Amino acid sequence: MTEGTTNDAGGSTIGVAMVGHAFMGAVHSQAWRTVHRFFDVPLAPRMVALAGRDERRTKEAADRYGWASVETDWRALLERDDVDLIDICTPGDTHAEIGIAALEAGKHVLCEKPLANTVDEAERMAEAAEKARARGVHSMVAFNYRRVPALSLARRLVAEGRIGEVRHVRAMYLQDWLSDAEAPMTWRLRKDKAGSGALGDIGAHIVDATQFVTGEPLTGVSGLTHTFVPRRPGSDGTHEDVTVDDCAVFTGRFASGAVAVFEATRYALGRKNAMRFEINGSRGSLAFDFEAMNDLWFYDGDEPGATAGFRRIVVTEPDHPYVEAWWPPGHGLGYEHTFTHEIADLLTAIGTNTAPEPSFADGLRVQRVLAAVEDSAAEGARWMQVDSAT
Amino acid sequence: MTEGTTNDAGGSTIGVAMVGHAFMGAVHSQAWRTVHRFFDVPLAPRMVALAGRDERRTKEAADRYGWASVETDWRALLERDDVDLIDICTPGDTHAEIGIAALEAGKHVLCEKPLANTVDEAERMAEAAEKARARGVHSMVAFNYRRVPALSLARRLVAEGRIGEVRHVRAMYLQDWLSDAEAPMTWRLRKDKAGSGALGDIGAHIVDATQFVTGEPLTGVSGLTHTFVPRRPGSDGTHEDVTVDDCAVFTGRFASGAVAVFEATRYALGRKNAMRFEINGSRGSLAFDFEAMNDLWFYDGDEPGATAGFRRIVVTEPDHPYVEAWWPPGHGLGYEHTFTHEIADLLTAIGTNTAPEPSFADGLRVQRVLAAVEDSAAEGARWMQVDSAT
Amino acid sequence: MTEGTTNDAGGSTIGVAMVGHAFMGAVHSQAWRTVHRFFDVPLAPRMVALAGRDERRTKEAADRYGWASVETDWRALLERDDVDLIDICTPGDTHAEIGIAALEAGKHVLCEKPLANTVDEAERMAEAAEKARARGVHSMVAFNYRRVPALSLARRLVAEGRIGEVRHVRAMYLQDWLSDAEAPMTWRLRKDKAGSGALGDIGAHIVDATQFVTGEPLTGVSGLTHTFVPRRPGSDGTHEDVTVDDCAVFTGRFASGAVAVFEATRYALGRKNAMRFEINGSRGSLAFDFEAMNDLWFYDGDEPGATAGFRRIVVTEPDHPYVEAWWPPGHGLGYEHTFTHEIADLLTAIGTNTAPEPSFADGLRVQRVLAAVEDSAAEGARWMQVDSAT
Amino acid sequence: MTEGTTNDAGGSTIGVAMVGHAFMGAVHSQAWRTVHRFFDVPLAPRMVALAGRDERRTKEAADRYGWASVETDWRALLERDDVDLIDICTPGDTHAEIGIAALEAGKHVLCEKPLANTVDEAERMAEAAEKARARGVHSMVAFNYRRVPALSLARRLVAEGRIGEVRHVRAMYLQDWLSDAEAPMTWRLRKDKAGSGALGDIGAHIVDATQFVTGEPLTGVSGLTHTFVPRRPGSDGTHEDVTVDDCAVFTGRFASGAVAVFEATRYALGRKNAMRFEINGSRGSLAFDFEAMNDLWFYDGDEPGATAGFRRIVVTEPDHPYVEAWWPPGHGLGYEHTFTHEIADLLTAIGTNTAPEPSFADGLRVQRVLAAVEDSAAEGARWMQVDSAT
Repeated sequence: MTEGTTNDAGGSTIGVAMVGHAFMGAVHSQAWRTVHRFFDVPLAPRMVALAGRDERRTKEAADRYGWASVETDWRALLERDDVDLIDICTPGDTHAEIGIAALEAGKHVLCEKPLANTVDEAERMAEAAEKARARGVHSMVAFNYRRVPALSLARRLVAEGRIGEVRHVRAMYLQDWLSDAEAPMTWRLRKDKAGSGALGDIGAHIVDATQFVTGEPLTGVSGLTHTFVPRRPGSDGTHEDVTVDDCAVFTGRFASGAVAVFEATRYALGRKNAMRFEINGSRGSLAFDFEAMNDLWFYDGDEPGATAGFRRIVVTEPDHPYVEAWWPPGHGLGYEHTFTHEIADLLTAIGTNTAPEPSFADGLRVQRVLAAVEDSAAEGARWMQVDSAT
Repeated sequence: MTEGTTNDAGGSTIGVAMVGHAFMGAVHSQAWRTVHRFFDVPLAPRMVALAGRDERRTKEAADRYGWASVETDWRALLERDDVDLIDICTPGDTHAEIGIAALEAGKHVLCEKPLANTVDEAERMAEAAEKARARGVHSMVAFNYRRVPALSLARRLVAEGRIGEVRHVRAMYLQDWLSDAEAPMTWRLRKDKAGSGALGDIGAHIVDATQFVTGEPLTGVSGLTHTFVPRRPGSDGTHEDVTVDDCAVFTGRFASGAVAVFEATRYALGRKNAMRFEINGSRGSLAFDFEAMNDLWFYDGDEPGATAGFRRIVVTEPDHPYVEAWWPPGHGLGYEHTFTHEIADLLTAIGTNTAPEPSFADGLRVQRVLAAVEDSAAEGARWMQVDSAT
Repeated sequence: MTEGTTNDAGGSTIGVAMVGHAFMGAVHSQAWRTVHRFFDVPLAPRMVALAGRDERRTKEAADRYGWASVETDWRALLERDDVDLIDICTPGDTHAEIGIAALEAGKHVLCEKPLANTVDEAERMAEAAEKARARGVHSMVAFNYRRVPALSLARRLVAEGRIGEVRHVRAMYLQDWLSDAEAPMTWRLRKDKAGSGALGDIGAHIVDATQFVTGEPLTGVSGLTHTFVPRRPGSDGTHEDVTVDDCAVFTGRFASGAVAVFEATRYALGRKNAMRFEINGSRGSLAFDFEAMNDLWFYDGDEPGATAGFRRIVVTEPDHPYVEAWWPPGHGLGYEHTFTHEIADLLTAIGTNTAPEPSFADGLRVQRVLAAVEDSAAEGARWMQVDSAT
Repeated sequence: MTEGTTNDAGGSTIGVAMVGHAFMGAVHSQAWRTVHRFFDVPLAPRMVALAGRDERRTKEAADRYGWASVETDWRALLERDDVDLIDICTPGDTHAEIGIAALEAGKHVLCEKPLANTVDEAERMAEAAEKARARGVHSMVAFNYRRVPALSLARRLVAEGRIGEVRHVRAMYLQDWLSDAEAPMTWRLRKDKAGSGALGDIGAHIVDATQFVTGEPLTGVSGLTHTFVPRRPGSDGTHEDVTVDDCAVFTGRFASGAVAVFEATRYALGRKNAMRFEINGSRGSLAFDFEAMNDLWFYDGDEPGATAGFRRIVVTEPDHPYVEAWWPPGHGLGYEHTFTHEIADLLTAIGTNTAPEPSFADGLRVQRVLAAVEDSAAEGARWMQVDSAT
C-alpha cells in the first residue's frame, strides 16, 4: 500500500471561501470540488469556508458541499489568512459591498451575475477591480454561458472570420417557471433584492453572450418591459407586489451596425431554459439553444449552394473548447460543467497573473445595456444610446 | 367509350382572368387549374384570360399556364363578359388602381399582398371592397400563409382556448437571397414599385399570420429598419440605389396586452424561407416554421409536468384543415397548396355569397402596422399606436 | 384579345390512358395535368381515357380528374389509336396481365409498384419490357420516391464519391394506420390481391430507394415477418383473415459488402409516412426522412472535426434536382411532386427514345429481394442469396 | 469560525476501492466523489484505494481522481479491512476472476459491462453473486444508460401501460471512431481482451436498455457481423489483426412477441455516441437518442388525431427520475451523471440490504443474447433461441 493524496496540484493551492449557498452555491461548490480533477490548473482549490447568515443551515450546506468551516458574517472572511479568493453567490443587492471589500482586502473575487443591481454599483465595482488588478488581485463576473463549449466554439468561429461581418443577432432567453399566476413570491421578484426581473436575471446572459460571441458591444437599444402577474402569494398567505419586470423585449444595434432583437421572459410555457441565439453574417451563420447545449449549428456560406446547410456540430470533440478534459465524442456535458470551465479559466488566470474574463468591466458593460433597456421602456421605447466607455 | 369532361362542377363555373405572370402568376395558375380537382367548390374556374404588357411574353405564359387568351392592357378585362373575377399578381404600386377599377366593374378580386404600397391606397381599396360587397362583389387579399394547414390548425387551437390568454408572440421571416452584396437590383428594391423592402414583402406575412392566429390586432409598435447594401448592380452595368429597407425589427403589443417581437430580413444566411412564429399563452404554446411547413408544435400546459413537452403534430391527418382533400397521413403538402386552399375558400365564399377572408380591411390593418413601423423607425424607435379602426 | 392555348408543347403530344382511379389514380392524374406546365417535356400529355370496372364511379373520377373518356374494360384501351401510353394504377395482381398486353400492343407503360405480386410475373414483365424496348416502346415502374429531390441529390452525392465506399445502410418505412386492431379489412391485407403486406407495399420502396441511392444491388438477406392482428372486421360485419405480413424486418448485404438493416411496418404508432434511411460511407453519411421530405442530411467526413456535423440541406435550390422548375428556395414541394417528376422523366425518355428508369428490370430486382425475405422468414431467418441476374 | 466536515452522511460510510483507471476509472471516480453531495445516500463513500499494475501511473491517477492509496495487485484489496466495495473498471477478460474473488472475500462489487467475455464466465459470476447475496454481499453490473433520466422515465411510462403492448423495438448504437482505416489498434479490437467488438462494447448497452425499458427479455435473434478493417497499425509500426467484429446487426423477438432490429457499429460516420431506440406499442411510442440525452420523445396514442404528435419531453423536471437532486428545469445533465445515479442506487441498496439492479443475472442475460448473435452470425444468420433461464 502506497499513500495517495487528494491534491494533485503539486503543492500550489488557493484558499477559497464562498458567500451564499442556494442554487448558485450548490453548483459553484461542485465546480470547486471538481476543477482540478480534470483540468491542469496551476492552483488547486482548498474549500476553506462557507459564509451564510443562518448558522445551522450554513453548517448543513458546508457539510453537504464540502466546505471546511462556516462563518455567519462574510466580513470574517476578509480577516482570514487561509482565504485567498471569495466567491459571491448572493443576490445582486449585496454584490457591490462584498465585492469591493473583498478586493480591497486583497482577495480575488468571483462574482455571480448580474454584476450589480445598478450601473452606479457596477461602476464602483469595475473601478475597484481595476485598482486591485494593479496589485495582482483578480476578479471575474460569472457569466458561465461563455463557457458552454458550443458558445466558446461560436466565439472562435466568429473571430476566425467564418461568418464574415455580423448583420443580425437574435437572442432569446425563454423560461416558464412563472407561467402559473399562483406560483409563489420570491426574492427574484423584488426590485430591492434582484434589481430587475427577467431582464437582469436572464436577459443579462444573452446580452453578455452575444457581445462575447460577436466580439462587439451593443451601442443602442429600444425596449419594452411588462409584468403579467403583478401580485403573487407571499409566505404569510397574503399577496405581495411583484416589483420587477416579467419580461423584456428590445431591439438594438451592435457597434458594427448589426441589427438585433432580444427577448427575456419566464412566461414562455414549455421552454425550460431556452437560452438561444442566432447570428447571421455576410459569410455564414451560427445558432445555439441551451436546451441542446452540446450542439452548435453552423451555416457555411462558402459552401456551394447544392450542399450548403445548417450543420449540427456535436461539440464534444477533443479539439473543441474545454472538451479534451472530459469524455469521448458524443458523451455530452451538462449545465454544471460551464462553472467548472469558468473556474478552471479563473485559476489559470490567477496562477499566471493575467486578467481573467469576463471582467467586472464586462459586467458593467452588460449593466449599462440593461439600464438603457429600462430607461427606454420608461420613455415609450425611445432609442437609448449605450455608454460603452469603461 | 364514354365521353368524360374536364369540368366536374356540374355546370356552375366562374370566368377568371389574371394580371401579371411572374412568380405569383405561376403559382396562382397552378391553383386555378387544380382547385376543383380536389375541393368540392360551388364554381369551377374557367381560366379565360391573362393580362400582361409584353404580348409575346404574355402569350408564352398563357400557353404554359393554361390561360385561354391574353390581353396587353388589363383594362380590357373589365369589359369582358366572360371575366367574373380578376386575380391581381402585379407589384404593389398597381394594386389600388386595378383593384378598385375591377370592383367597380363588378368583378370579384383576389389581390396579392401587400394590399397596397401606402395606407392611403389601402384605405381606398378597403372602402371600394366594402361598397362592392353590398352589391355581391367579393374581394380577398392573398395572405396565403393563413392556408398552410398547420397555421389554420394553430388558429383553431387558439380559438378553442387551448393556449389560454396570449402572452408572447415572436415572429420571424428570414430569407437570405440578398446576402450576396453583388446580387442584382430588382423591382423589389425600389420604393416606387414595392412600397417597402423586407417589411412589406415578408414582414406583412408575419403581421397578418400572427394577427390571424391570435385573433387579435397589433395596437402599437416600435421599429428599426436598416439597409445593409445601399447600391446594387443594375441591368446596364451601373449600380443603382436600393430605396427600401433590407430588414425590419420591431417590438409590439397585441390588443390583449401580449408582448411581441418581429423580424423580417433577406440577409439571414442559410434561412431560405423561414417564416416562423412562437406564441406562448397561459395554458399552452404553439410554434411553426415554414421550412417544415407540415408540422405544428404544440405544448399543452394542462399536461402533467412529467409528460409535458412540445409535440410535433404532423398536420396531414384527415381532420386537419384542408387535408382531407389530399393524400393519406404523412404525405406532405407543399408551398403551392396554400394557394389552392385560398382559392377554394374564395370560390366557396363567392358561390355562397359570404365575405371571404382575409378581406381588404384585413389587408388595410396589416398596412397600418407596416406604416407604424416605418414611422417609428423614422423617429428613433418611438412607440407608435396602430390605428385599428377600419 | 389574342387566343391562347392550353398546350405549350408546340404540337407534340402523347395520348395517355390510366387504369384504376383510387389513391394512386388521383395523384397520377394530378401529375399528368401538371407536368408540362413546369417541365419542358418533348411531349405534352393528352389525358384521353380512364379505365375502371364500375362505369358510374369511373365516369365520376374521369370528370373530377380530367380524363376525356372512360372505358369499363382496360382491354379497350389497347385498340384505341389515341392511346399511346397506359398508366397502371391497379392492385398488384393485375399488373402482369395489363402491362404485358399493353407492351405487346405497342403502348408505352407506366406501372405502379410493386411491379408484380410474384417473381415469376415480374420476370415475364421484364422480358416483355425488353422486347418492347427493341421496338421503341418504353416502360417504367413507378418508384416515385426516387424523384424526391432530396433522394435524387443523395444519389448524385454518392455517385460523385462524396460518402466514399458504402458501409452501412439502415432503412425504415414506418406507418401506423393499422395500429388500431379494429381498423377494417382492405384489399391490401389479402395475399391474392396485394401479394404481400408491409413488405411489398412499403418495404419495396426502401429496397428500391437504397439500391438506387447506393447504386448497388442487395445480394443477400435474412428476414422475419409478423402479423400482429390476424383477423379484422370485414365489410359484412364478420371478421376476415389477414393473409399478409403486418411487418417485415431483415438484415442484408449490398454488392460491395455494405451491411444493411431494413424494417417495414404499419404499426409504428405516431409515424405517419416515415420512409427513412441513413447511409454511412468511408468519407461521409447521408440521412433522409420523408416526413421532412425537403431536407437531406449530409455529413462530410472531409471536413475538419471541429466544424464537422450533419448538415440539413434544404433541397429547394435551383441546382437541386427538379427544383428549378418550381419555386424559390425554401418554398417546399410535397408528395405529389414526386409523381410529376417521374412523369417528366418518362416523357423525356419516350420523346428521346431512351430507356426510362426505374425499368421493369429494376422492378424485378426489387421483387427478388422481397421474395428472398419471404423465403428466409419461412425458413427460420436463414440467409438467402438474392439472384441479381436480369 | 465553526468547523465543517466533508462528510454529510452522519457517520455511516463505506470504503471503496477501484481496479483500473482508464476512461471508466475517471468517470466512476467523479461519481464516487460526487454522489453524497447530491443524493441522500445511507452510506458516504470513502475512496480508500486504487489498484493498477503500473505503480507510477496508478499513483498519478489516484492523486488526480482522489483515491487515498494505491495497490499494484488487486488481490491486496481483498485483504484490506478498510475496503467494503470493489469497483471493477478493467477490460472484460478480468471481470470473472476479480468479481468472484471479491464477492467471496465479502466485498460488494460494482462491475463494468459487459459482465464477462463469455457466457460461461458470466454464469459463474451470477452464481457467485447469488451466493454472496445470501450473506448480505451485493453486486451490480454497470449498465449506466439505465440511469439516464430519460431512459428511467421511458421504463416508468412502459410500466404504467402508457404505450400498451410492445410491438416494435428498433435500437441502434452508432459511433464512428473506427471509420478511419488508419486509426490505431487498441485492446478493444482484440478478442482475447474484449471478448467481442461493437457487439459487446456498445451492442450490450442497447440489449440491456431495451430489455430494461420494455421489461421483457429477448427470446431469439438472427445476426450478421462484419469486420470492415481487418488489420490496423499497431504500436510497433507493423499492422496487427483485428479479431473482433466492427459491427453487428440482428433481428430479434421479445418475450411478448414484439419484433426487433438492432445495430451496433463504430463506423457510422458522423454519429458520435448515438445510442438510440424507438419502441412502438399498441397505445403509444417512445424514442430516445443519447446525443440529445435530456430528451425523451413520447407519442400518446390516446390523444385525438388532430393534436397527437411525438412530444419532446425535456427530462429535467423535479418529478423526473433522479432530477430533483440536481438543477432547475432545462439545466441539462451530462454523461457522467448516469454513473452518479447508478452509484446512488447501489449505495441505497447496500445501505438497506436490498438487491441492486441491474444484477449479475441481468448481465448474464445480456451475455446470452450477445452469444446467440455471434452463434447465429457464424451459422448463416440462423435463428437462435436465447436461453432465458438464470
